[in-house]
Amino acid sequence: MSHKLRGYVGLAADLRAGKTTPRAYLDDTLKRIAELDPAIGAFVTLNKDGAIKAADASTARWRGGKPLSPIDGMPIAIKDIIETADMPTGQGSPLFEGEESRRDSASVHALREAGAIIIGKTTTTEFAATHPWHKTQNPHAPRRTPGGSSSGSSAAVGAGMVPAGLGTQVVGSILRPASFCGALGFKPSIGAINRSGSHDHFSQSCQGAIGATLADIWAVMRAIADRAGGDPGFVGLSGDVNLTKVTKPKRLGVLETGGWSAATEGARQAFAAARDKLAKAGVELKGRTDDPDIDTVEKTIADAQPLTLAINAWEGRWPLNTYSDLDASKLSEGARSRLKIAEATTQAQYADLLTRRVAARGAYAKAASKYDAFVTLGACGAAPVGLGSTGNTAMNVAASLLGCPALTLPLLTDEGLPLGLQLMGATDRDAALFDVAGWVARDVFGRADLVGAA
Amino acid sequence: MSHKLRGYVGLAADLRAGKTTPRAYLDDTLKRIAELDPAIGAFVTLNKDGAIKAADASTARWRGGKPLSPIDGMPIAIKDIIETADMPTGQGSPLFEGEESRRDSASVHALREAGAIIIGKTTTTEFAATHPWHKTQNPHAPRRTPGGSSSGSSAAVGAGMVPAGLGTQVVGSILRPASFCGALGFKPSIGAINRSGSHDHFSQSCQGAIGATLADIWAVMRAIADRAGGDPGFVGLSGDVNLTKVTKPKRLGVLETGGWSAATEGARQAFAAARDKLAKAGVELKGRTDDPDIDTVEKTIADAQPLTLAINAWEGRWPLNTYSDLDASKLSEGARSRLKIAEATTQAQYADLLTRRVAARGAYAKAASKYDAFVTLGACGAAPVGLGSTGNTAMNVAASLLGCPALTLPLLTDEGLPLGLQLMGATDRDAALFDVAGWVARDVFGRADLVGAA
Repeated sequence: MSHKLRGYVGLAADLRAGKTTPRAYLDDTLKRIAELDPAIGAFVTLNKDGAIKAADASTARWRGGKPLSPIDGMPIAIKDIIETADMPTGQGSPLFEGEESRRDSASVHALREAGAIIIGKTTTTEFAATHPWHKTQNPHAPRRTPGGSSSGSSAAVGAGMVPAGLGTQVVGSILRPASFCGALGFKPSIGAINRSGSHDHFSQSCQGAIGATLADIWAVMRAIADRAGGDPGFVGLSGDVNLTKVTKPKRLGVLETGGWSAATEGARQAFAAARDKLAKAGVELKGRTDDPDIDTVEKTIADAQPLTLAINAWEGRWPLNTYSDLDASKLSEGARSRLKIAEATTQAQYADLLTRRVAARGAYAKAASKYDAFVTLGACGAAPVGLGSTGNTAMNVAASLLGCPALTLPLLTDEGLPLGLQLMGATDRDAALFDVAGWVARDVFGRADLVGAA
Repeated sequence: MSHKLRGYVGLAADLRAGKTTPRAYLDDTLKRIAELDPAIGAFVTLNKDGAIKAADASTARWRGGKPLSPIDGMPIAIKDIIETADMPTGQGSPLFEGEESRRDSASVHALREAGAIIIGKTTTTEFAATHPWHKTQNPHAPRRTPGGSSSGSSAAVGAGMVPAGLGTQVVGSILRPASFCGALGFKPSIGAINRSGSHDHFSQSCQGAIGATLADIWAVMRAIADRAGGDPGFVGLSGDVNLTKVTKPKRLGVLETGGWSAATEGARQAFAAARDKLAKAGVELKGRTDDPDIDTVEKTIADAQPLTLAINAWEGRWPLNTYSDLDASKLSEGARSRLKIAEATTQAQYADLLTRRVAARGAYAKAASKYDAFVTLGACGAAPVGLGSTGNTAMNVAASLLGCPALTLPLLTDEGLPLGLQLMGATDRDAALFDVAGWVARDVFGRADLVGAA
C-alpha cells in the first residue's frame, strides 16, 4: 500500500454529486488503518463505532445538500494531549493512561459541530515534551522516528491513513514530525486556535494541524476558529473558510535559523536547489548578506532553542511538580530532570527571558513587514534512525519563539526520504502565508495536489 | 463569637519566639469553623486530618527557626474552582460534585511549597459564574448573600474562620463578596498569578485572594508568584515578599464607575464621607469634572458590564457546550441561556468587543499614569437580602475589564453592614497599590489592624 497523502475537502464536488460519500471515505480510512497501523503505531485509541455513526450522519447531510461545513465527514485524528469526551486522554504518560476527562476540548467540540469525524487519538511523547514512551514508526522508514511530539498525527497523515490530525507545538512539535513524515504541517500564529481543554499550557504553545493538503489544513483550522475562536483574548484565525487563491510573492526572505549548523549536507543541498527554483520563478530572494534586518533576526534567534527551553522550564514547573507528587516513578528521567531545572529557575530569571523574547519578536516583526514570507528548512534533515529520540527541533523553534505562523510542505528530500520546505509568515497574517505556500507548491514545484482546493 | 478578622503573618514575631504555634492557630481555626460554619456554609470540603499534619510540620519548622516563608503554617481556604490533589473540585456544579483531579493547581502547589495549610474547599457559584447552588450565608447577616462567585472564601475570611482564601474574578467575583463579607479582597493585574489548574479560562480571569489584612493577602500572592509565577508569558506579581511600608499618595482619582447609578443612597453617603476624610488627610482628589482624562475613562467603562458579559459569552461557549453534552439537566437555566447567547455570537463580533476593551485599557493607562490610585466603592451597597442572587457586579467589573489591580478594604458601612472602599491601581503596579492602601487604612481610617504587617 503506497503512502500517498489522502485529502478530503478537494472531494467536495464528488460529495455534493453523490459520487462518493463520507461513509465510503471512512471505510477506506479504516481499511488503511487496519493494514498500516499495526506496523506504524500512530493510534493509541480508535473509535471505530463512533466514527461509523458519525460518517453515516454526515453522508445523510451531504445527500440532503446540507453539509455543516467543508470538513463535514472528514476523519480527523487527535493528538492524545487534547481532551475528548468519548476517548481517554493519556498525555503520552503512563501516569495518565486511560484517564477520562468526560469532556471535549474546545477544538474537538468545534470539529464535531462542523461535522468532522473524531476517529481516534494519536501517540505523543510524554506530556507532549521529550520522552517517547510510545514507539511509533516513521511511515516512510521503519526504525526511524516519526518526530515528536505530534508523532501519531504526523505518522497517520504521512501514511495516508487520515487527511488531517490535530497537533500542538511549543518548540517544534508540529513542523518537525510533519517534515519527517512527508506531510504538511501548520503551526498558527500565537493564540490563533483555542487551546482550552488541551494539556498544553506554555506561553508559546499553539494548537495546529498536520494534513494532506493546504486546503484540508486551512478548512480544519478555520472550522475550529469559527466555532471556538482563538485562545481567550485573541480574535482567532481569520479569513475565508475556503482556500480559494494562490498568490505569487514579490519578495521572499531566506532565514538560516539557529538550526542551520545542524542541517545535514543533503538538506542544505535540497534547500539550495529550492532556492534556485524560487529565484527562477521570478521571486526576489534576500538573505542575511542582502538585508541587515534579516541579519538582525538571525542573530536574535540564534539561541532560540536554549531560550525556549529556559522559558519552558519555568513555565513547566507546574504541572510536573504535582505529577511528581502523584507518582514520580512514572515520570521519565527527562521529565524529572526538567522539574529540577524548573525549581532552580527564579521569577527574575524568567523576566529576563521574556525580555529577550520580546526583542526577538520585535526584530522579526520589522523584517516580516518587508517580505511576503521567509523560507527555511522544515527540519535539519530526514528523520533520524532510532525510536528513542524524536529528532532535533533546531529548525522549528524559531517560529515558536517568534509566535509567527509557519507551514512545512513536503517538497524536498534527504537520503531519499521526505524533508519539508518551511515557510514562515508575519504574525496574525496566517491566511497570506497559505496563499504564498499554494503558489510555491503548485507553480514552483508543480504540486497542485498539495494545494487541494475544491 | 465575634466575626473579627484574624490575620496570620502579623504573628511572625510570636511564632518565631514560640509564644504561639501554627498548630495552636489551626486548633483555633478548626474550633471557629466547627462553631460558625454549620450556619454559614462556607466550606464544601474540610481536610481536618491533612491540616493537622501540615500544622504540626509547620510548628516544627518554626521551632527550628526555619519557616519556609512568611505564610508557613497559615490555613488557607481554596475556592472550589481551583484543583487540589487531596480534595475534589466541584466547580459549584452538580455535574462535578466529588470530581477528583489528582493534582494541585499551580497556585495550591506553590502554597504548599511555602508551608501553607490547605484547609478546605469553599463554595462558589456554578462554574464560578452566576447560579448559587450552594446557599452560603453572609457571616454578618444571615439570609443575605455573601456575594459571589468567591462566596465561601469571602464568608470564611469575613467570619474570622481563616486568615485568607483564594478566589478568582472575571467580572466581580473577588471584590464584591469581600465587600459584602467585611473582608479585604484583592484582584491582581491581569496575568499576575498563575491560573493553571483552575477552571477559570476567560481572558479577564484572575486568581486573587480574600484576606484579613493587606500583609496576609500580599504574602499569599507573593508566595504563589515566587514559586509558580504569573500566567505563562507573564512575569507575575513582583515586589518584596513582606509588606514593609505604607505610602501617602500625592494624588487620587475618584472614579464613578458604570455602577454608580446602582449604588444605594447609604453607599453614596459613605463614599462621600470617605472622600472628605481623604481630602482632610491632605491628598489631592480629582474627579471627572476636574480632569478630562478621568471623564474619558468613565465614558469608556460606562458599559463595562454588558461589554464584559458579551466577551465572556463568546469565551464561555466552551466548556458549556461540552458540559451540556454531558448532562444538560445538571446545568442551571442561567448556564443554558448563556450557552445559547454564546452560540449566537460570532468571531467577528468578538473581534469588535476586544477592540472596545483595548480602547478602554488605553484610556485607563493614560489616566492612571497621573494618579497614585483611583478610589471608588467596593460594591453598590451592603449585601442584598436573599440567597438566590449574589448581588450586582457593577462596581467591580471595571477593574476586570481594564485588567488593573484592585483592592477592597472594609472601611465603610451601609445599613450597618460592611461595605468596601475600593482602590484601583495602574496595571502591573500592584505593589504600589498596596502601599497606598496601607496608608488609607492606617493613617486615614485609623485601622492599622487591616495593614497587619509583621
